[in-house]
Amino acid sequence: MNNSAIGVFDSGVGGLTCVGELRRIMPCENIVYLGDTARVPYGTKSRDTIAHYARQDIRFLERHDVKMVLVACGTVSSVMMTVPIFEGSSVRAFGGVIEPAVEAACKATRNCRIGVIGTPATIRSECYADAIKKIRPDIRVTAKACPMFVPLVENGYTSPQDKVSRLIAEEYLEVMREEQVDTLILGCTHYPMLEAVIGEVMGEGVTLISSGREAARAARDALEKADALTDRREKGALELYCTDSEELFAENAAAFLGKVDMSISKCSLTI
Amino acid sequence: MNNSAIGVFDSGVGGLTCVGELRRIMPCENIVYLGDTARVPYGTKSRDTIAHYARQDIRFLERHDVKMVLVACGTVSSVMMTVPIFEGSSVRAFGGVIEPAVEAACKATRNCRIGVIGTPATIRSECYADAIKKIRPDIRVTAKACPMFVPLVENGYTSPQDKVSRLIAEEYLEVMREEQVDTLILGCTHYPMLEAVIGEVMGEGVTLISSGREAARAARDALEKADALTDRREKGALELYCTDSEELFAENAAAFLGKVDMSISKCSLTI
Repeated sequence: MNNSAIGVFDSGVGGLTCVGELRRIMPCENIVYLGDTARVPYGTKSRDTIAHYARQDIRFLERHDVKMVLVACGTVSSVMMTVPIFEGSSVRAFGGVIEPAVEAACKATRNCRIGVIGTPATIRSECYADAIKKIRPDIRVTAKACPMFVPLVENGYTSPQDKVSRLIAEEYLEVMREEQVDTLILGCTHYPMLEAVIGEVMGEGVTLISSGREAARAARDALEKADALTDRREKGALELYCTDSEELFAENAAAFLGKVDMSISKCSLTI
Repeated sequence: MNNSAIGVFDSGVGGLTCVGELRRIMPCENIVYLGDTARVPYGTKSRDTIAHYARQDIRFLERHDVKMVLVACGTVSSVMMTVPIFEGSSVRAFGGVIEPAVEAACKATRNCRIGVIGTPATIRSECYADAIKKIRPDIRVTAKACPMFVPLVENGYTSPQDKVSRLIAEEYLEVMREEQVDTLILGCTHYPMLEAVIGEVMGEGVTLISSGREAARAARDALEKADALTDRREKGALELYCTDSEELFAENAAAFLGKVDMSISKCSLTI
């Protein structure tokens, strides 16, 4: 049993879909979240710079005495598959968003055709395709960058009836329908906000795998295995930190999490 | 007469609309352009950080022996109205994108109603409204942030027939039609790429003022007045520099400038 908080970080607000899922499946856990909004996006930066930023983010969470660090950033998750970012850190449990989603997708597919959508940086890195090939070389992977999805989410075009989101989703997902994928990985933590539109365009037979949701489940499994779940019975606290304006972050946080009790503070990472 | 190049910088690719206009009206001038793509966007950063980045950009252009620095970045143009960024610099001629657009709009309006569209940071700063009020306090200004326009341009949704751009433009510009503005300032250097769609939504009676185009004209007037235009007769050279991947920049540059002779190099600004 361990009553310390779960630490989560992302380059911005997208990782809050992961936080929402953590709270749904482990409502009594305390959560400390860091969104590095002053330096968002990470995806366009070099791997060295991304690793440096990630280590700073981890150190910030360590100072909040967390029992685990969940990397809710697709870009950092991809970098950490080859560059050590937890070395020298006192955090013992950690995880990214790629492997849990890949495992879930490989379990879900029946026709061995998996689609992956993500930011241009994630798709260019081929991290999902590589991870799938490693455990299931027989699976055909179709990957597609969807650069408009993040701006759509961040500007509120998330209603299932929204015409703009529908047009763009139809354009991006056409190749997934042509390739008859039966499982689609939402490889960016923003995308679950468009799940309704994506689900309608893909049709009922297709399983959507949210990388943030799977990462949250994997985190619970890891804590359970290590006997490190909380024994608290009341609702856990939610502390959010950002590196740019709190006002902007608060607006976005509400869109991702709905109206919930949370504290939001601006922090500095300049070391 | 001065045969040195004109220096232009922006946080990214948007300033290339300004370069296109410079080349149209002064085809024999050499141009050196810097797009700070590794640190784009500037609009979300603090004023101190923006001023620091701008000074680095200016120093870079100085080292290329330019006769003038044109600030083709709306965010920096807004910051430089109150924070000195050219102090200690050897550049004698410089200009931003705000004042030339405001002067042109004040000349163009007949019903004294001007609209301004721009990024959220530009609209929040109220720099256009303030500049208009300073010279024409009788003018009613309607301002509207259009956060989806930059992603639309950067992802190629620029055809006048594009349904997505049309839907979003109709949504953003509704207030401009309600307020019956007869002059609309495109207060972001990306927006001229959507000029056809914006023009169709606003209707024929409305004058569109491109901040990049007006800045280019003001630059020509300033050079003419200082007797610093080139006396070269052949086509000027175009040197482009960026701080992130040259490949990505080359794609974008072609979308903004078409197929023209240019050199593209990656440079470092870490000082």
